[in-house]
Amino acid sequence: MSGTNRTIDPILGGPTIILVEPQLGENIGATARAMLNFGLVDLRLVRPRDGWPNDRAISSASGADQVMESVQVFDTTAVAIGDLNHVLAATARTRAITKDIIGPRQAAQDCRKRMASGAKVGILFGPERAGLHNDDLALSDTIIAIATNPAFASLNLSQSVLLVAYEWFAAGKAGAELAPMDGAEEQATKEDLVAFFEAFEKELDTGGFLKPPEKRPAMIRTLRNLFQKARLTDQEVRSLRGVVVALTRLRGPPR
Amino acid sequence: MSGTNRTIDPILGGPTIILVEPQLGENIGATARAMLNFGLVDLRLVRPRDGWPNDRAISSASGADQVMESVQVFDTTAVAIGDLNHVLAATARTRAITKDIIGPRQAAQDCRKRMASGAKVGILFGPERAGLHNDDLALSDTIIAIATNPAFASLNLSQSVLLVAYEWFAAGKAGAELAPMDGAEEQATKEDLVAFFEAFEKELDTGGFLKPPEKRPAMIRTLRNLFQKARLTDQEVRSLRGVVVALTRLRGPPR
Repeated sequence: MSGTNRTIDPILGGPTIILVEPQLGENIGATARAMLNFGLVDLRLVRPRDGWPNDRAISSASGADQVMESVQVFDTTAVAIGDLNHVLAATARTRAITKDIIGPRQAAQDCRKRMASGAKVGILFGPERAGLHNDDLALSDTIIAIATNPAFASLNLSQSVLLVAYEWFAAGKAGAELAPMDGAEEQATKEDLVAFFEAFEKELDTGGFLKPPEKRPAMIRTLRNLFQKARLTDQEVRSLRGVVVALTRLRGPPR
Repeated sequence: MSGTNRTIDPILGGPTIILVEPQLGENIGATARAMLNFGLVDLRLVRPRDGWPNDRAISSASGADQVMESVQVFDTTAVAIGDLNHVLAATARTRAITKDIIGPRQAAQDCRKRMASGAKVGILFGPERAGLHNDDLALSDTIIAIATNPAFASLNLSQSVLLVAYEWFAAGKAGAELAPMDGAEEQATKEDLVAFFEAFEKELDTGGFLKPPEKRPAMIRTLRNLFQKARLTDQEVRSLRGVVVALTRLRGPPR
């Protein structure tokens, strides 16, 4: 590892995912899809039960070719992680091993910092039923534990990978959680809004709605607040003016 | 609904999940499993393609009986969300609709605050391929968008639910503030809102506003979106019903 900072692709890249003895092809494919959804591309398999390649994996990958075509298969975990500098192990189970245990959010930040310094980082996931073997945990630097409902704790394998990948991606996007609001620039001017209010209230007076007179100001405030909350666009104000015309056009003479 | 704070079960509870026209039983089952992993229990289906109950859903739920046994099925989204006060819609697509767009993390905090104030909250997810219909978005208060790799953006349905549920659970673990949100408890139910929409649109039909017929659905969506954005309270919905009566009461016979 060099000591200099590396540039990480803002979208693609991220830690290597290593599935140890995965059983179901569906889960391998769903893992590939979940990885690529969040920009991870390097998938390695250790002794997949049904061999490789696997048709079920291909169909459940839903076109995540960039991951599927570069999958590497290994005989042992040790060889699969040989070129990595730092390895995290995802496991739901607490064990008598004295390692740091962190959640996926903290793991994502940890991975980003290490990779920015040039480290190669990977995350181990165990077989569907059994979880990682203690020997694999012993090769790991840190444990990732995902907090779940204790009465129904077992996550699907690809779902566990998804959460780790999601946090990786979110850590890169940090600060971008609140997307700009569509159409904020189209908001009607206050002038147009007030013109609508006045036309509307005039028709309400004609319809006898804003009575008794002492309650009129409060009623108007209620209605104006209601439309204000909607942050109306120009187009919406025009629609509302049309609505008032439509609702009143068949009126007879005022009573 | 009272204005007092409600106690939320620290583990079980959470927002209602509504799947609109889900196609694959596997995805419904995987959704139930993902929900229960993170303590959500109320699952509703609108027009599931293969009917209900569904054997493939049962097998992929992996024993999430607490969710599966209480699934409710509805004919329309409007009825499925009728008892809810606040509805979020998960969609990957940006559309020309002026609603707030937030990520799953912020959505989780928002849901917790609203529910702590006694509001009933739900989250809509669309069909696997098409996403939510604009008519369903028009019934929603807020959009949840999950940031993904733009070159491979499409998340599996149950994976989307998982991420939202995961953030819900994580927000509770983080000891997220449960400060009630002002006024959240007064928000009108969707049932009352839809009843107002229908009465309003009937009068607009009488007034000849919703023409030509081929433009009627889009015009209705525009108006519903506009009122949806206002997050109307019970009192405001009653005021608006009064407004429509006032505007139309002096009508002569339809021309």
